[in-house]
Formats: sequence, structure tokens, C-alpha cells
Amino acid sequence: MKRIAFLVVAVAAVAGVVASMAPASGRADDEAVPIFGIKIPAGYRDWRMISVAHEEGNLHSFAAILGNDVAIKAYREGKLPYPDGSIIAALHYGHVPSEENDKVFGNPQSFVPGPPTNVQFMVKDSKKYASTGGWGFAHFNKDGKPGDEALLKTCSPCHAKASRDFVFTRYAP
Amino acid sequence: MKRIAFLVVAVAAVAGVVASMAPASGRADDEAVPIFGIKIPAGYRDWRMISVAHEEGNLHSFAAILGNDVAIKAYREGKLPYPDGSIIAALHYGHVPSEENDKVFGNPQSFVPGPPTNVQFMVKDSKKYASTGGWGFAHFNKDGKPGDEALLKTCSPCHAKASRDFVFTRYAP
Repeated sequence: MKRIAFLVVAVAAVAGVVASMAPASGRADDEAVPIFGIKIPAGYRDWRMISVAHEEGNLHSFAAILGNDVAIKAYREGKLPYPDGSIIAALHYGHVPSEENDKVFGNPQSFVPGPPTNVQFMVKDSKKYASTGGWGFAHFNKDGKPGDEALLKTCSPCHAKASRDFVFTRYAP
Repeated sequence: MKRIAFLVVAVAAVAGVVASMAPASGRADDEAVPIFGIKIPAGYRDWRMISVAHEEGNLHSFAAILGNDVAIKAYREGKLPYPDGSIIAALHYGHVPSEENDKVFGNPQSFVPGPPTNVQFMVKDSKKYASTGGWGFAHFNKDGKPGDEALLKTCSPCHAKASRDFVFTRYAP
């Protein structure tokens, strides 16, 4: 399981270094991911923040986790399971030192997002995605290209281990 | 300068451990900070995300940096200096390991926001705050109590060292 759990983020981390993320508005011609048929949701970069995250090990990644209105409402009300229509977005970046900040602080202590690596989505539709806990999963590399079938098959078995309806991220007040 | 630069965040980190942050909507009876007279802006927790940050050294802090509409627009257009009306919020939390995630990953690698420690704001008003680079600064502990005068005096000298109009945080796409 350890290997599988790593795979999603590891592939993401390797996926690219140069920053040129899909635009905030999404694009009409985005390709859908296999298995779940999910495209990049329009306007996701404008969604409200659920929390932030930092993965070490081989990943050195930063994440901002955003939610659409349905997801944010469910989080704030502590509603489980998440209602249909909930979408959670994980925007991943490298976790890199900030030379500018460290110089001002006089200490190597500041870490900021490096170039974007990928963005991932969880989409709740309890009927459509009944066989994967009611959640559809999507992964897009920094250039907007969807993850492949092998990658997407790793999402649900790992998220099934989360204690709150397949969701690892808790709300940061 | 090193000491001064640390102070703002250090005080924040020490300020408290238990999570009970000011509600997302702000409160009408919030106290204003000294010097700059800024209260907690209503609804700041609904603002869009600018970026995330992580400070080590003695801090072990996570930050989510959010901006009001004026600030987000300026960031996305690369507009400098920031126009009057820009407000940037830094929501600070502890930077703590996630036992749940580490168990699933099989490796001690996951860090998530711990309890909130404080929230800080930069408010652009080039006339009102002319003597501090056009920015007013505010700090509120997790219980909504404003930082004191000594603390607030440290903000501007440190932010003056940032290369982009007193602002350290860059936009994460």
C-alpha cells in the first residue's frame, strides 16, 4: 500500500518543473481523465481554501486544498458524508526555499511554493462513482494533460483509508 | 534585523495552541490594533488564495495567504505597487505531522496545519499609511486580541525589505 499511496504524488512531483499551469478559468478543450471522465472544473482557482499541506519523503511538495461551494459548506457544517456535487481540488507545487525571505530573516527557514506540478480533484457523485466510494478522481499535470489509467486506479484504494469519507484534508479555520 | 524579523511570527507561534479562531465572518466588536487602527476584515476567510508558506527555525508555522478582490486582481495582473484597497491576509497555524496520513503513507512525511496561532493583515492606503510605505499592518491572536504597539512597530521595517512593494508573498498559480 505504501508504494501505491506514494505513486499519485510521486508521479506528480516528477511530472514537471516549469510553471505554466492551466488557467484559473479552466479551458473548454481540456481533456477528461480516463475511468472517471472528469475535466478541469472551470474557475477552480477562485474557490475558497480548505487547508494547506506539505509532503516530505521523496516529494517535497506543497499543496493548497480548495473547495467548491458545496464542499466548503459541508466542511464548515461538519457534514459527512460529503453531499453530491462536492469538489475538492489539490493544487500541488514544489516545496522550495525562499532565498529572498531567508536573506531578510537571516536564517534558512522560509519555504514557499515552487513551480506547480499538478492539480488533482475529487468529485462526489454517489451514483456515478458508487464503486469508488462515491468519489471520482482526476489528476492533471501542469500542462493540463490528464493522468493515465494506471495512475487513476491508485486514487480510490488509498483514499478509502482516510477516516472521513475518503477525504484526508481537514478544514483549517 | 534578524531579531526583529522573527518577532512578528515568533510572538504568533507562542500566542496559543488551542484552536478557536475568530469566525470567518469577522465580528463587529473586534478590537482594532494600535498604530494602524485596523480591525479584522469581515469575511476574510472567504477570500481567494494567493499562496501558502512554511516557516521553520523556531517557528514551525504554516501559512495560508489570502487576498481580497483588489489584491487578487493586482496579483494576477502583476500590478505594482498594489492599489489602495488591497488587503492581504496571512492565516498562521502550527506546522504539525499528520498521524493519519503518515500511517496511510507508511512513512513520516505528511505535515498539516495545527491549531491556528494568529492572523495578520496588510492594508494598502497610500495616504493614511504614507509613513509605512502605504501599508497598514495588523496582527490578531487566535482569540481575536490585537497585537500590541511594540509588535506592530516591527512589521513595516521588515516588510520594507521585500522586493515587491513591501510584500513577500508571490502568487501561486
